[in-house]
Amino acid sequence: MAGKPPVDFYFDFSSPYGYIASTRIDEIAERNGRTVKWRPILLGVVFKTTGAGPLPSQPLKGDYSLHDFARSARFWGVPYALPKPFPFNAVQPSRVFYWLDGRDPALAKRFARAALHAAFPGQQDITSAEACAGIAAQLGVTREDVLAAVNDPAVKEKLRAEVESAIKRGVFGSPYIVVDGEPFWGADRLDQVERWIKSGGW
Amino acid sequence: MAGKPPVDFYFDFSSPYGYIASTRIDEIAERNGRTVKWRPILLGVVFKTTGAGPLPSQPLKGDYSLHDFARSARFWGVPYALPKPFPFNAVQPSRVFYWLDGRDPALAKRFARAALHAAFPGQQDITSAEACAGIAAQLGVTREDVLAAVNDPAVKEKLRAEVESAIKRGVFGSPYIVVDGEPFWGADRLDQVERWIKSGGW
Repeated sequence: MAGKPPVDFYFDFSSPYGYIASTRIDEIAERNGRTVKWRPILLGVVFKTTGAGPLPSQPLKGDYSLHDFARSARFWGVPYALPKPFPFNAVQPSRVFYWLDGRDPALAKRFARAALHAAFPGQQDITSAEACAGIAAQLGVTREDVLAAVNDPAVKEKLRAEVESAIKRGVFGSPYIVVDGEPFWGADRLDQVERWIKSGGW
Repeated sequence: MAGKPPVDFYFDFSSPYGYIASTRIDEIAERNGRTVKWRPILLGVVFKTTGAGPLPSQPLKGDYSLHDFARSARFWGVPYALPKPFPFNAVQPSRVFYWLDGRDPALAKRFARAALHAAFPGQQDITSAEACAGIAAQLGVTREDVLAAVNDPAVKEKLRAEVESAIKRGVFGSPYIVVDGEPFWGADRLDQVERWIKSGGW
């Protein structure tokens, strides 16, 4: 498997199914000799392209989805609570992620895990730069550097470009996982993702 | 398990994920000592309530879903082809189903399986009363009785009432499976359906 490109894992920090998948995707890839590249996106921007809206705002499907988030998390043994607020604006954690990713991808992933853990089981508001700086500080990142980074035009542009690139690639939801060009949408496609990694198709 | 009510299996004859689930749901229930009540619905009527539309007409998600229908069918080992036309109007096969269901539920289920098989791997147009009568005839049902049934006001009313009852219950997609009051949406929830049947929750 050496030399194969990473599996692309697109997610919105505010997406419960993205959070659930985030707790499983690296283990699935790694036990099959692959790595995972995390790529936060902003579903609000994506939905402007697709005309779709967040699940919880849709009649009938909305109530069901709130129920299914929690039930699916329990099914997979993932600690979960609905964030407050929900859905939330993921611009700041996404900027922090891409800023860190340019310096230390492993640290960026640790930040993302910590932010998702704070938002989901923790029900902490991670929408502000200050909240993100507090999470990053626990990983040894200087608070002031985080607060400067989220206002850095280059970091803002990096996130904008990543989201645009995702949309051009056809990403329309969270999680959205691409294995060697093959796209999979949804935390409920991880079994298929694993089989695709193993076999290159079926 | 004796005495427990059947698992309710809502589906639209035109739904690929409904078709995929139809090939697995009875086996899942029966190996856990339960039976399944099939309940065809009309997604076109349901979507008027939810404001949603058929997956294939949605930007980005549409192309993905056509790909995912076929890939998921292969994943589960289910013979599959996209029906022609697609999506199609399921009024007539649904009427035939409920007419037969009032006389012989097992026969109604055999008819539904045969109609789905004709539409999906077979790519036969099952939208007309004549096509449905041909399918029913192979199961020993008199063609003329089928052609009369689909125009029987009581049969029409039965389908209308079933769809209305489903909407009132919160059914918004296909397949939609209810186990002892617990709703599951999607062919990708059958693992959860089975665990719920086994354990009554988690």
